[in-house]
Amino acid sequence: AGLGGIGLDTSKGIVKAGPKNLVILDRIENPAAIAELKAINPKVTVTFYPYDVTVPLAETKKLLTTIFAKLKTVDLLINGAGILNDHQIELTIAINFTGLVNTTTAIMDFWDKRKGGPGGAIANICSVTGFNAIYQVPVYSASKAAVVSFTSSLAKLAPITGVIAYSINPGITKTTLVHKFNSWLDVEPRVAELLDEHPTQTTTQCAQKFVKAIEANQNGAIWKLDLGRLDAVNWTK
Amino acid sequence: AGLGGIGLDTSKGIVKAGPKNLVILDRIENPAAIAELKAINPKVTVTFYPYDVTVPLAETKKLLTTIFAKLKTVDLLINGAGILNDHQIELTIAINFTGLVNTTTAIMDFWDKRKGGPGGAIANICSVTGFNAIYQVPVYSASKAAVVSFTSSLAKLAPITGVIAYSINPGITKTTLVHKFNSWLDVEPRVAELLDEHPTQTTTQCAQKFVKAIEANQNGAIWKLDLGRLDAVNWTK
Repeated sequence: AGLGGIGLDTSKGIVKAGPKNLVILDRIENPAAIAELKAINPKVTVTFYPYDVTVPLAETKKLLTTIFAKLKTVDLLINGAGILNDHQIELTIAINFTGLVNTTTAIMDFWDKRKGGPGGAIANICSVTGFNAIYQVPVYSASKAAVVSFTSSLAKLAPITGVIAYSINPGITKTTLVHKFNSWLDVEPRVAELLDEHPTQTTTQCAQKFVKAIEANQNGAIWKLDLGRLDAVNWTK
Repeated sequence: AGLGGIGLDTSKGIVKAGPKNLVILDRIENPAAIAELKAINPKVTVTFYPYDVTVPLAETKKLLTTIFAKLKTVDLLINGAGILNDHQIELTIAINFTGLVNTTTAIMDFWDKRKGGPGGAIANICSVTGFNAIYQVPVYSASKAAVVSFTSSLAKLAPITGVIAYSINPGITKTTLVHKFNSWLDVEPRVAELLDEHPTQTTTQCAQKFVKAIEANQNGAIWKLDLGRLDAVNWTK
């Protein structure tokens, strides 16, 4: 898990639910947020490791080796790193898509049942723009379509790998991500303001449903978290 | 256009249709193929430039400056570079997704009506795996979901940019691409053989329908080219 807008509130919800360990991976350490998490439930060991999802696969594997050596078992990976800025094509794709694929690929070394691993569960934070694009940010939306597709494929591979997967797809949520952002080639300079006119949800509402989706632990689910609701998307094509 | 399996046959069809110019962009020059194209219709000027879609945006813009200076006008861009090899995560994403976005972004400098450009048309070669993933190649399929989404967003931006866009989505086609390829983490070592057991189409059949889709020039169309047929996908979500 991370410490972004949805990430921090979701981490609070997870700590309340009371796992043995919660490992926070993010680019920048935020000791105040970590302390806050620790204070919520002293029974949960909260640790932080700096992690940038754009590093090469080998580096991610090294970090995971450290984490697995310390915790022995890891039950759930939440891939939640994301940026929204269509002026930054390469970075958007590197963080939102390649980073998620690489982190997933790296953890398979430890989880894949074909290698004697115990299996595991992956919650990928995608976005409703993965199926209903915000066309003013076509690169962001496309990167989210990619990870929705990738997650559904992962779920179909669960019988082979022993690793289940589901996607968490928030609608417009009042995070710093959507406060101000650039459209592709400035096709719509007011895109952030226009989104703000739509009904939105708070990060608290979104995080609450997120925890419910984690508890459901349902392989292949495409969870839509919008307007404070949690719905399973039934995709018929 | 390029000179891959579907690319060469489609280029032949385009030359027969008789535009003033056809510019072939591909990583490696293939003089025999270029000569073959020139022989089909001597009225069409066929030129070749080496182009690797993974180069930085600035380099693509430089190449396009050369091409636009020579031709004065360009009516259609076909983005067709693609690889299928889920052992190569970064390269798959760089060619199939980032390369297509960057080439599109670069040509907007010349076409965008907000800059006084004349508009244009973009045919993006995606894949049916963009909407029905082959889950044994989840990275490839996800990269194709990304470009299907990106193309649909481009189409919605046409009123702003003056540039229309549609996607060409071939089903399984007898190309060198599907002859032999790697699944993600070798989840299915026989994936290429298994695909071969499905009904397929030849590159000639696919190219024929491709030319029809180009002639239709329909903004926002999601063309499915499968089993020798051409169908518009109506996506209701």
